[in-house]
Amino acid sequence: MRCIRLRLAYDGTDYDGWQSQKSGRSIQDAVEAAVARLVGHKVRVLGSGRTDAGVHAVGQVAAFRTEKGFPPDVIRKAVNARLPDDIVVLSADEVPAEFHPIRDARQKRYRYLLSDAALPNVFLRRYVWRYPRPLDAAAMKRAAEALRGTHDFSAFQSAGSRRATSIRTIHDLCVRRSPLVPHLITIDVSANGFLYNMMRNIVGSLVDVGRGARPVSWISEILNQQDRRCAGATAPPHGLFLISVSYPEDNVAPDWDERLPWSGVAHSEFPLI
Amino acid sequence: MRCIRLRLAYDGTDYDGWQSQKSGRSIQDAVEAAVARLVGHKVRVLGSGRTDAGVHAVGQVAAFRTEKGFPPDVIRKAVNARLPDDIVVLSADEVPAEFHPIRDARQKRYRYLLSDAALPNVFLRRYVWRYPRPLDAAAMKRAAEALRGTHDFSAFQSAGSRRATSIRTIHDLCVRRSPLVPHLITIDVSANGFLYNMMRNIVGSLVDVGRGARPVSWISEILNQQDRRCAGATAPPHGLFLISVSYPEDNVAPDWDERLPWSGVAHSEFPLI
Repeated sequence: MRCIRLRLAYDGTDYDGWQSQKSGRSIQDAVEAAVARLVGHKVRVLGSGRTDAGVHAVGQVAAFRTEKGFPPDVIRKAVNARLPDDIVVLSADEVPAEFHPIRDARQKRYRYLLSDAALPNVFLRRYVWRYPRPLDAAAMKRAAEALRGTHDFSAFQSAGSRRATSIRTIHDLCVRRSPLVPHLITIDVSANGFLYNMMRNIVGSLVDVGRGARPVSWISEILNQQDRRCAGATAPPHGLFLISVSYPEDNVAPDWDERLPWSGVAHSEFPLI
Repeated sequence: MRCIRLRLAYDGTDYDGWQSQKSGRSIQDAVEAAVARLVGHKVRVLGSGRTDAGVHAVGQVAAFRTEKGFPPDVIRKAVNARLPDDIVVLSADEVPAEFHPIRDARQKRYRYLLSDAALPNVFLRRYVWRYPRPLDAAAMKRAAEALRGTHDFSAFQSAGSRRATSIRTIHDLCVRRSPLVPHLITIDVSANGFLYNMMRNIVGSLVDVGRGARPVSWISEILNQQDRRCAGATAPPHGLFLISVSYPEDNVAPDWDERLPWSGVAHSEFPLI
């Protein structure tokens, strides 16, 4: 049995999230339908993890098994021809049969896009959370430093998750205001795993600091309290992007910048990727 | 009777164009409904010109009349609160009662966004026409130079228009590949008026040059032939943006860059605005 790995980008606006739903309106349902039409049999496309309703991806990873002999790039093109235009397969490759997209993932990277523009931008409304008052991005950046490293992130975990442990390691973290688009603030977090809603709960808490409702030291305090009720509200899903998922055999950074409309900004301000 | 002028941005994807329709799914219908709910009477909101279904705007101008005494900025905020999130009033001001948004317009500026990226970008699919093979942007730029100045643009006018004359003056024109996002080509045209589908017919013809199907001299030839059948196909609507409409009393360039998701690109590569 061959195992085919897909790297996917999607606009999550019109979907009920990654995970297969009775509604049939999930990204997974759409990808499984497109792959099934190509290979001619029912197929399970397992993702590296769920993304919630409204959350986007520029580098989700998923895998499926088939006996069919199509070369990976033929699969990429043929599946794309069968997908709606808000989902695209960026690349496909054949991986060892024992590959497992959840178990084998070593690192995930998320980006959250936030704006404090005075006026809404109709072209960004599906992709950026606009907070209608000025935010102190420098204070948010200082507050976020407390999250770097290995911690129990219970305070940033929403109810309903079933992870064995709430300890995670944040390898990299970056909060900055774009030099090109002054109202745009990007929050990038790279970790060995994310608890349920962890990224959105971090962003909601950082915004409490940015709007001046909480001091810079507050993020460190709620981290130590390990109580979800102490942290800020969950930021809305539409500003969140799953950027990439890394596996042990990966030796190059994924080429994701091209997938974002503000890739010029990404190139200039996010050289880590 | 007061005359209130609005400057509007909209994502045209989900509308049947600017002009009021029986379907009720036009931008004008949506704006008129929002204004009527504020002022408490039926109202006609006259635009500076039609934009077709799927065409966007970052600086459409429209005007309506009312006896109500709301200050312009109160009107802006109150109408925005009543509009769907894909239409926004950027500014409102009171103008002389005789102001007419069509008759008084002196210059319009359109931008077309084109990409020859190998892979689709799901986040740009509503705003950029992707041509799936490489385009020679330098050849398109040389070809477009023939359009500058005063000409009879009959060859670029689609059937169904009812303009008295097909002579127009293109004041400014710019075709360039973005230095930040290499697959993105912008085509900017500023003129004293545009015939029906003129901008999209120009783009369709330039793409014929860019893909190598026609020589650089071809644009000049079809301009001289004054026959719509000689020119290229009409480019799709979703890459087109009405950028601004200028009036005699305007003495500052409109601040439109902020309304585009790729405003960083616009700032760096389109200093004319």
